[in-house]
Amino acid sequence: MRRVVVVGGVAGGMSAAARLRRLDESAQIVVLERGGEVSFANCGLPYHVGGEIPHRDALLLHTPDSLESSLDLDVRVHHDVRSIDREGRTVTARDLVHDVDVVLPYDALVLATGADPIVPPLPGLDRPQVRTLRTVPDADVLRAMLAAGAQKAVVIGAGFIGLETVEAFRRRGLDVTLVEMAPQVLPAIDAEMAALVEAELRLHHVDVRVGTGFAAVEDSTTDHPVDVVLADGSRLAADVVLLGVGVKPSTALARDAGLELSDRGAVVVTADQRTSDPSIWAVGDAIQVIDAVTGVPGVVPLAGPANRQGRTAADSILGRARTSQPVLGTAVVKVFGLTAAVTGPTSRRLTAAGVEHHVVHLHPGSHAGYYPGAKPVHLVLLFTPEGRVLGAQAVGKDGVDKRIDVIATALRAGMTVDDLAELELAYAPPFGSAKDPVNMAGFMAQNILDGTLRAWGPDDLDGFGDDVLLLDVRSEVEVEGGHLPGSYNVPHTELRDHLDDVRQAAAGRPVRVLCASGFRSYLAHRVLAQNGFDSASLDGGLMTLRAQRP
Amino acid sequence: MRRVVVVGGVAGGMSAAARLRRLDESAQIVVLERGGEVSFANCGLPYHVGGEIPHRDALLLHTPDSLESSLDLDVRVHHDVRSIDREGRTVTARDLVHDVDVVLPYDALVLATGADPIVPPLPGLDRPQVRTLRTVPDADVLRAMLAAGAQKAVVIGAGFIGLETVEAFRRRGLDVTLVEMAPQVLPAIDAEMAALVEAELRLHHVDVRVGTGFAAVEDSTTDHPVDVVLADGSRLAADVVLLGVGVKPSTALARDAGLELSDRGAVVVTADQRTSDPSIWAVGDAIQVIDAVTGVPGVVPLAGPANRQGRTAADSILGRARTSQPVLGTAVVKVFGLTAAVTGPTSRRLTAAGVEHHVVHLHPGSHAGYYPGAKPVHLVLLFTPEGRVLGAQAVGKDGVDKRIDVIATALRAGMTVDDLAELELAYAPPFGSAKDPVNMAGFMAQNILDGTLRAWGPDDLDGFGDDVLLLDVRSEVEVEGGHLPGSYNVPHTELRDHLDDVRQAAAGRPVRVLCASGFRSYLAHRVLAQNGFDSASLDGGLMTLRAQRP
Ligand SMILES: Cc1cc2nc3c(=O)[nH]c(=O)nc-3n(C[C@H](O)[C@H](O)[C@H](O)COP(=O)(O)OP(=O)(O)OC[C@H]3O[C@@H](n4cnc5c(N)ncnc54)[C@H](O)[C@@H]3O)c2cc1C
Ligand SMILES: Cc1cc2nc3c(=O)[nH]c(=O)nc-3n(C[C@H](O)[C@H](O)[C@H](O)COP(=O)(O)OP(=O)(O)OC[C@H]3O[C@@H](n4cnc5c(N)ncnc54)[C@H](O)[C@@H]3O)c2cc1C
Ligand SMILES: CC(C)(COP(=O)(O)OP(=O)(O)OC[C@H]1O[C@@H](n2cnc3c(N)ncnc32)[C@H](O)[C@@H]1OP(=O)(O)O)[C@@H](O)C(=O)NCCC(=O)NCCS
Ligand SMILES: CC(C)(COP(=O)(O)OP(=O)(O)OC[C@H]1O[C@@H](n2cnc3c(N)ncnc32)[C@H](O)[C@@H]1OP(=O)(O)O)[C@@H](O)C(=O)NCCC(=O)NCCS
Repeated sequence: MRRVVVVGGVAGGMSAAARLRRLDESAQIVVLERGGEVSFANCGLPYHVGGEIPHRDALLLHTPDSLESSLDLDVRVHHDVRSIDREGRTVTARDLVHDVDVVLPYDALVLATGADPIVPPLPGLDRPQVRTLRTVPDADVLRAMLAAGAQKAVVIGAGFIGLETVEAFRRRGLDVTLVEMAPQVLPAIDAEMAALVEAELRLHHVDVRVGTGFAAVEDSTTDHPVDVVLADGSRLAADVVLLGVGVKPSTALARDAGLELSDRGAVVVTADQRTSDPSIWAVGDAIQVIDAVTGVPGVVPLAGPANRQGRTAADSILGRARTSQPVLGTAVVKVFGLTAAVTGPTSRRLTAAGVEHHVVHLHPGSHAGYYPGAKPVHLVLLFTPEGRVLGAQAVGKDGVDKRIDVIATALRAGMTVDDLAELELAYAPPFGSAKDPVNMAGFMAQNILDGTLRAWGPDDLDGFGDDVLLLDVRSEVEVEGGHLPGSYNVPHTELRDHLDDVRQAAAGRPVRVLCASGFRSYLAHRVLAQNGFDSASLDGGLMTLRAQRP
Repeated sequence: MRRVVVVGGVAGGMSAAARLRRLDESAQIVVLERGGEVSFANCGLPYHVGGEIPHRDALLLHTPDSLESSLDLDVRVHHDVRSIDREGRTVTARDLVHDVDVVLPYDALVLATGADPIVPPLPGLDRPQVRTLRTVPDADVLRAMLAAGAQKAVVIGAGFIGLETVEAFRRRGLDVTLVEMAPQVLPAIDAEMAALVEAELRLHHVDVRVGTGFAAVEDSTTDHPVDVVLADGSRLAADVVLLGVGVKPSTALARDAGLELSDRGAVVVTADQRTSDPSIWAVGDAIQVIDAVTGVPGVVPLAGPANRQGRTAADSILGRARTSQPVLGTAVVKVFGLTAAVTGPTSRRLTAAGVEHHVVHLHPGSHAGYYPGAKPVHLVLLFTPEGRVLGAQAVGKDGVDKRIDVIATALRAGMTVDDLAELELAYAPPFGSAKDPVNMAGFMAQNILDGTLRAWGPDDLDGFGDDVLLLDVRSEVEVEGGHLPGSYNVPHTELRDHLDDVRQAAAGRPVRVLCASGFRSYLAHRVLAQNGFDSASLDGGLMTLRAQRP
């Protein structure tokens, strides 16, 4: 009889245990969990704080009892695993209720110990008003603080969990200040996309402080219990402070047992989830993964990979040849009425990894414009000079997750922009367009690569000075509503009749065309380029420019 | 200067013309359109009839004027092309307004003549109450009939356009009877999926008559203007009769010019959209396409392919090496509150084409069950014995188009079910699950292929008689609410304690397990199989069984 011990009873661990049982009815499977809950919906915690998920029980997908009856798992909560004896193949756990040690032998050990919220070494973070959100009891505490009348919240960190908690707090009526050290919110996406999210936060009366370090939590100078002190010296009164500056792999156990860890403290595993000890597997937030695009090792603390790695580990323990794929980092977050999603590395990360790439920005409708309710999908596609898809990000009110899922699938398949152009996606007016946003991104990328579309971007603006003609091809009405200084206006519908005027205005200088989205300036660019102008079209139009340079 | 003539000024034709202009500023591009409108949203017509799109103008994406000013296209409406002189490279069009012939020379000719509604040779179809829906004037007429007080509608044909028109009529308050000769609605999807659509139609008080031929339209026996007579002799009083029994390629022009046509009258083209005459290209509903999965030639009258083929034709005319992909037939339709979508062939078509395949049915939530608003996604995945994805269909209230688009992308990439299992899709509670429905379908398919999951289906039920034990592993409460005759109940949570009872009840017979969705019966099957039983689990559970055998 195979003895399997699983440490950590949530996403990765319990997925491994459940799959193991399905494949091996006779194994002895013990799951040891430090906390009081297993199989809980970590990802639902912010929504429980915010009240969309009113009942705490809804977060508990399983209990030890239900896991026993349905999967014959021996699940022990309040059991903190303290050490692994790799030679003797035992783990020692502290039974926190009875305060005794329990020693369990294993043939196979699965480490699914997750991650711990990062708590920077700054003064005052041990105050009771400063909280993190990782477990059900964490949510309980936050709910209790809200119930007790908290009015002012400071959220430190504008990542996924930070943003979800901001929304939860606003939903409960709190004044919220969001503090982020990076120059943008949501560092998992590129700046011009994040700007749209920031606007949505402000629209919902969140006081957003980006590019602002946070220094300490101190005694109050108001009638709220603490002051959050920022690096710029400003003080924010707060009843509750949520620390959401990221997580780090929870691998003290693995480290003490001498398993190979990465620089960043993540457990190093093979594609079948095995650690440097062939009897020990590791999964989830605790492990190092390989970025599918850049090949760079890192950590991707997300539930999908954790769940699937758990399943792979179970198969691997039973000798089934199943491997996990490198990670794309596909992720999505709802921020009030907006959705932001990403697959693959950002342009920033590609640049850091030295991967040469192009980008195109576009703003197509979530579905056919003539059918009511279409909303813009702000989309950026990244691809190599050879046309291979590298990643994408999207922000909008509708249809965002769909486009990113399609591109995530294309990315996994190693597709090119030609393939995107030819994708055959489901179209009827309520759902998409005959030329879906993903096709459209493919078309634009093809045009970039074969020179049909020559693009310029916001960064070029700095270099311009007087040595180019900025040609705004929007309608006069649009131009009156605001335009770039010094730009010359010819509506694209009148361009062919005014080529001489443009030539005169350009006076030999290159022409840099722009419009609202990049579509009309593309049409104009084609006219100009074929009439001998040195022209280029503003990628993503003023919508992207204004997001990038507010 | 290159002279290009395009026949047909809507999806495929105008896409070709627009792309041509962008690539070749100097070409002379003439678009000839028989009707009075170009670039109109065919796909929006039912929604204009139904009133969701109240303004007719919204359907007109362009006018000849706007195409002239923006793309320098010479667009001539009310020009019916009557013949092609392939040797002399001219087309002759009838100017329907001035009633004169116009002869136009071409270097390249694009045929984008679309398709015509099929009108079966049955008596009475020439009555004014009998309509088809293909053009803006068609919609005008239907709206006029509704405005004039039509109360009773009969829709013949339960395909995409038939169903959309049913909804439009119901929305406008008409009594609607839907008549379909096939034994199911929506023949583009498999019967058990279509049953869900049929239920939605009935829920919205549509009188659905499937498996019923339609014989004639006759003089009225009521105070509504006509009677629709069905093959079974029944008579349906009607103010308006909508014929939606499909379309056929509109290729009289191509045929008369001696271009190669398929058996079904579609223009045969190469991958770069060239016809048997190297100076003539053809795109859209008029052409034959190759099914990407079965390799079988056919027609796929959908807007996405038409638009993309138009673009490919333009590139090909200009000598750019671009080819269209074989067609998957990805399609989607909204039917009241439900969405139905498909990519790739149905199981029925695969069987007809002799393609061996497996199916799995599942009913996962559109997003995490603990977050409010999740709705079941009824999903069927089709795959080869080697694991290659062949197609999928989905029906549900939310998240249906997304899953089909993901699988359409996987299908295009030639992915396997292992790849689906490892897709990394965007997950946060409002959008999906850590194990997305597509992953889940991949897991199940893996289990089928490696024998972990042995499935039985509704069709097996007939052969069963007393020679198997039907084991229902739902809870007692669920069983009390309705169960299969003769089934034996042991809740899956109690199975391990009642193996002896099951053994006794089985008395050596195979055990066929079932539950509501197939998940619990899979768990039970794993227990039974590993305890020596000959067992199998009902694919898709009672939900699929009841859909298949109402
Ligand atoms: C608030 C929040 C929102 C999130 N939202 C999303 C989202 O929308 N989408 C998404 O993809 N991901 C989301 N995540 C991340 C996702 O929950 C994690 O990636 C996933 O749970 C990781 O699974 P895991 O099994 O590695 O770790 P966990 O699920 O965290 O489980 C690890 C368990 O191990 C236990 N443990 C650790 N050490 C020991 C020990 N020595 N002995 C015994 N037990 C131990 C811990 O108590 C913990 O319960 C969110 C996370 C949080 C906290
Ligand atoms: C009511 C309705 C709803 C639809 N809904 C959807 C949907 O939701 N999703 C989807 O993908 N597809 C849908 N379609 C199908 C889609 O509209 C077609 O596949 C697409 O328009 C085909 O493009 P095409 O260019 O081949 O033909 P069309 O767009 O039909 O254009 C052909 C044009 O050629 C003209 N023409 C023909 N012969 C001549 C001639 N000899 N001289 C001059 N002109 C000529 C015709 O008048 C016509 O305007 C729908 C169609 C209809 C009618
Ligand atoms: C729920 C939990 C215990 C895992 O259980 P699980 O049984 O592996 O996962 P699911 O309930 O999703 O079921 C998946 C299994 O059911 C099978 N299945 C699903 N629907 C099926 C159907 N209709 N018919 C047959 N099989 C089906 C799948 O094939 C899969 O089995 P396999 O892995 O043996 O192939 C574990 O994931 C967990 O604790 N989750 C909560 C924590 C978490 O995930 N947090 C992060 C997100 S908030
Ligand atoms: C609209 C219509 C005239 C085609 O025009 P089109 O210009 O090819 O199509 P779109 O307006 O969608 O624009 C697509 C082009 O803009 C480009 N584009 C789109 N957004 C862009 C942006 N932000 N920046 C740069 N280029 C952009 C694309 O790359 C593509 O150009 P390409 O083909 O040269 O690569 C034609 O499709 C039509 O008549 N449609 C109505 C009928 C119809 O489709 N019916 C069926 C569905 S209801």
